[in-house]
Amino acid sequence: MKATIISVGNELLMGKTVNTNLTFIAKGLRTLGIEISKAMCSTDEEESIQGALKETNDELIILTGGLGPTPDDMTKEVVCRYYDLELVLHESSLEAIKETFARANKPMNDSNLKQAYFPKEAIVLKNENGTAPGAIIAKDDKTIVLLPGPPSELRPMLNTVLNYLESRLDIKVYQEGYLVVGIGESAMQERLGDFYDRHPSVNIAPYAGLGEIQYIFTSHDKEGLESALDAFKKQFDDVIVGPYYTPLEERVVELLMMKNQTISFAESCTAGLLAGRLVNVADVSKVFKEAYVLYSNESKIKQLGVNQLIMDKFGAVSDQCVYELAYQLAQRTDSDLTVSISGIAGPSGGTVMKPVGTVYFGVHYDGLTKTYHQVFSGNRQMVRDKAVTYALGLIYDTLTGKHEDKY
Amino acid sequence: MKATIISVGNELLMGKTVNTNLTFIAKGLRTLGIEISKAMCSTDEEESIQGALKETNDELIILTGGLGPTPDDMTKEVVCRYYDLELVLHESSLEAIKETFARANKPMNDSNLKQAYFPKEAIVLKNENGTAPGAIIAKDDKTIVLLPGPPSELRPMLNTVLNYLESRLDIKVYQEGYLVVGIGESAMQERLGDFYDRHPSVNIAPYAGLGEIQYIFTSHDKEGLESALDAFKKQFDDVIVGPYYTPLEERVVELLMMKNQTISFAESCTAGLLAGRLVNVADVSKVFKEAYVLYSNESKIKQLGVNQLIMDKFGAVSDQCVYELAYQLAQRTDSDLTVSISGIAGPSGGTVMKPVGTVYFGVHYDGLTKTYHQVFSGNRQMVRDKAVTYALGLIYDTLTGKHEDKY
Repeated sequence: MKATIISVGNELLMGKTVNTNLTFIAKGLRTLGIEISKAMCSTDEEESIQGALKETNDELIILTGGLGPTPDDMTKEVVCRYYDLELVLHESSLEAIKETFARANKPMNDSNLKQAYFPKEAIVLKNENGTAPGAIIAKDDKTIVLLPGPPSELRPMLNTVLNYLESRLDIKVYQEGYLVVGIGESAMQERLGDFYDRHPSVNIAPYAGLGEIQYIFTSHDKEGLESALDAFKKQFDDVIVGPYYTPLEERVVELLMMKNQTISFAESCTAGLLAGRLVNVADVSKVFKEAYVLYSNESKIKQLGVNQLIMDKFGAVSDQCVYELAYQLAQRTDSDLTVSISGIAGPSGGTVMKPVGTVYFGVHYDGLTKTYHQVFSGNRQMVRDKAVTYALGLIYDTLTGKHEDKY
Repeated sequence: MKATIISVGNELLMGKTVNTNLTFIAKGLRTLGIEISKAMCSTDEEESIQGALKETNDELIILTGGLGPTPDDMTKEVVCRYYDLELVLHESSLEAIKETFARANKPMNDSNLKQAYFPKEAIVLKNENGTAPGAIIAKDDKTIVLLPGPPSELRPMLNTVLNYLESRLDIKVYQEGYLVVGIGESAMQERLGDFYDRHPSVNIAPYAGLGEIQYIFTSHDKEGLESALDAFKKQFDDVIVGPYYTPLEERVVELLMMKNQTISFAESCTAGLLAGRLVNVADVSKVFKEAYVLYSNESKIKQLGVNQLIMDKFGAVSDQCVYELAYQLAQRTDSDLTVSISGIAGPSGGTVMKPVGTVYFGVHYDGLTKTYHQVFSGNRQMVRDKAVTYALGLIYDTLTGKHEDKY
């Protein structure tokens, strides 16, 4: 099966939005062995969308964007005119939209009404994060899929689309993989050597984030996949933190819950981002005690009692300071594990000895306080995000006892 | 002038690479008022590139990718066959490629030779960061631009292309706009009414983020643009927080610095994300004092002395609790402005009276403590991100004295 992706939206052609949806959908389709023959961006105008539809003969056509409530959102209407499909009111979608507005205690606009209309042959896809539902429409030998433009709305829907396609295609594809933390992409590349060649029946794709890499293994060959997974696990046990689909913060919370232990943070340059990320996990309240954002030297001294002498002699970005912060935090909060972070996120503040990107970490656990440091590349926000991921990796390693050989 | 962008590369259609080049080029063309009518991704195959060329009648055609030394890089060759252009050796390009290899102390491959061939009518664009030069080719009424795929090689070349186009076009385009906070996209749509129609010479495009919307105005007509900007400012003064290109956290830090005032936060459901976002601004240390992440009820009581009775009677997600948090925080930190946030981010914890997405805000400023609340839609992370933007909007309004009429 071949597919065409049509991304609708002026913002894509005006340079406002990067089309990450195409990449996300392409990755998903690849797991089913579906090849994208062509990808196009069209404007919001009827002519442009129609023009794109004319240019494809593929069996599968996925359109993204243009499902919103405003008059210039008309992907669904154009598709229905083009394929001669009649729009009818879809009651449960109307209810869902009404509910969303009721919950927000806001009046529903008439313009939202049109979001509840679909061709009667459509499978309507519920939107968990917005008002625009998506749809799968089977028409003659073609499958047409409509998805909303915002990635947070599109992504949760794609699974349903893939399941639908899988059942139609009658193929079985297996996918597994690992999340790797604490090592760069090119260092991993080197350690991998000819790993890919040794597992020819498996597609292995790395997806690098800020401070972490997902390795996703996909194959029709179940045994080949399992042997590749085993080999990877053996070779990279020191940097694997779990399955690729489990965010690192979730792994950390899981471990703490298993051990019935608590955690607290003292953050300087990351200023709350570590706590903010841990709290992504809904169950976090059972293990997360407190976090202090200690951006100024004054607050480090006042709130956690760091000695002024340490500040004067070694500075806030030092082993000594993060040691004190982690240790004092443990005393004050009575948490099982405490983490402190202090660094130079830039753009200014760097020195020859401590360049921009230098970040110190203190970890107190099981009666011991240890310190670590790392120099991260990138701009201010990237340094801070990488430091947060690194800290989560440190916590993971500390809880699993893995950190001894790694640092 | 209208343009077509053709991005060549299997990696784009396989979900390996996000097409950031399109966005980068589109932004550049917009400054010249050149509209992209169509964007396509093709595979590396001749048929696919040719197919894309057939589908455009635009005056300007920009192709990216496929200029490398390997046999599957053949964008230049396909374009020359399609437009009947003869390839000849370009001496200075050959020298440049030789030099690159000499500098890296590596032998030059024969395959690199083909990168030095161009149609004789081409303006060759030097590649500062790789071996593949780009080219501008004027052929009859068309301008064809070839650029290498890697962003680090493409980006430095685009300026030369824009300068060439500007001198050919002899036009000037103006762009301005506003950042709007504290109102949803569809509510704005309704308030806008026929605003767009009343300013026909101006292109007005809204770009919605989580809790904020950028309105970008673009026009050749300078007076028309200014009158549209004035009218927008008059009508939406209550929700405008600044020019579209200044992030809200930067506006807030600017205002605090101007007033020589300080700020502190007490965060429950956002758990550090508000502090984390303010610290995006490099100069923040002059105005940011402290932040407490008070996720548990226990920590709210222990760290900021919220009365146990308030917790028991009204709960942590209440006017009374955020009032106490903001007030106590002001007393303890001696900050000019304090903000507290407590809410139900979900997925569980909602009630009929306080559904998931309900967030309370306390703001203490100038001797007064006020409270606000809002119900945000979306998943846990979206609710938390929207709450952070909303809080920044509240801070902005408080500092500018705008909040009285709005809430």
